[in-house]
Amino acid sequence: MKHAIVLLSGGIDSATTLAMAKADGYACDAISFDYGQRHIAELNAAEQVAESLGAASHRVIRLDLNSIGGSALTEACIAVPETPSEGIPVTYVPARNTVFLSLALGLAEVVGARDLFIGVTAVDYSGYPDCRPAFIQAFEQLANVATKAGVEGGRFHVHAPLIEMGKAEIIRAGRALGVDYAQTISCYQADVQGRACGVCDSCRFRREGFERAGVPDPTRYRV
Amino acid sequence: MKHAIVLLSGGIDSATTLAMAKADGYACDAISFDYGQRHIAELNAAEQVAESLGAASHRVIRLDLNSIGGSALTEACIAVPETPSEGIPVTYVPARNTVFLSLALGLAEVVGARDLFIGVTAVDYSGYPDCRPAFIQAFEQLANVATKAGVEGGRFHVHAPLIEMGKAEIIRAGRALGVDYAQTISCYQADVQGRACGVCDSCRFRREGFERAGVPDPTRYRV
Repeated sequence: MKHAIVLLSGGIDSATTLAMAKADGYACDAISFDYGQRHIAELNAAEQVAESLGAASHRVIRLDLNSIGGSALTEACIAVPETPSEGIPVTYVPARNTVFLSLALGLAEVVGARDLFIGVTAVDYSGYPDCRPAFIQAFEQLANVATKAGVEGGRFHVHAPLIEMGKAEIIRAGRALGVDYAQTISCYQADVQGRACGVCDSCRFRREGFERAGVPDPTRYRV
Repeated sequence: MKHAIVLLSGGIDSATTLAMAKADGYACDAISFDYGQRHIAELNAAEQVAESLGAASHRVIRLDLNSIGGSALTEACIAVPETPSEGIPVTYVPARNTVFLSLALGLAEVVGARDLFIGVTAVDYSGYPDCRPAFIQAFEQLANVATKAGVEGGRFHVHAPLIEMGKAEIIRAGRALGVDYAQTISCYQADVQGRACGVCDSCRFRREGFERAGVPDPTRYRV
């Protein structure tokens, strides 16, 4: 059976991506990151999602991004915006997807996988540079020169199956594949019980997605 | 003053690279990684080197590569080879320089630096794929699409000033810039006092380098 590494944050997009990779016939090694984000509710969500979607394994890699900082998600003194902003918002974590894919690439080499899945989307998103097709292509090129497996003739492929999908479309696709979105958490500042703020960018995209998909929103809100 | 991020492992190559970046007029933010390597003596060495070469700052980022494994440097059950081997040796850490440069890139964005320095060399080395010019070029391309700074028109430059230099040449260049190699540690399995095994690949390249450079070897060996 072919193996894939799937980045799993515990949100809608990565849960759907895992379900898609599974449906494509991959045995999926899920990987999450404890990087000093504002809450660990998303790591609990990732664990539940990995289990219920039948991931072959689930690892949580610890990684100290707080000592780099520079984002509302990794520095306590930068507030998460509660209204939409112009340009790339302060929730952007510098080079985050580059770091996460690099670690996924290392794991892929170790377990012999050549396929990486990441749930980025360039529709209904916050404009993060590392969610665009150009980024995915550049990373794939890098992967093939950066690694022993690449040098020895293996070809890495970075799959971003959601990249051209809107949130509603993603939700409909995931529902068809059996994803239980009640298990997922999107909020940038969920509380320890996993309840969402309802006002951050990520909550807004999520809520609009359920509305447009005509699917009841299973999110637990604080207010 | 222009800022640069310099990857600093505590060995000959990264110490020399830091001295070169300094000589080029950069204020240098040094970055090291506590990634579960076999010994922390190299982190102590990095700290000493950063201080004596006048780095503007020195950060140690914690990062759990043990849960990925796949290398003699990150898995206790894989022995460090004590004789030269064919091909890429088991001391290769999957995607290590990709991960390290990604984290350096994140820091560069945060502090406003656009120059990264890495002390890789494709001469007198172990054949690691992520020490070659093709890797450096691919990472530079990635950096410029992966980041907010890149999207906004900044250009990242990845400097690998040693890439075509042999170990003896590196040592002579570093001596001319005032590097004290007695502070550096190269051994893959140094003990807690920082004493070298004398037999691993890294010790071999180091010893041959001092011999060829006609410079007394300041390394403290266990035997």
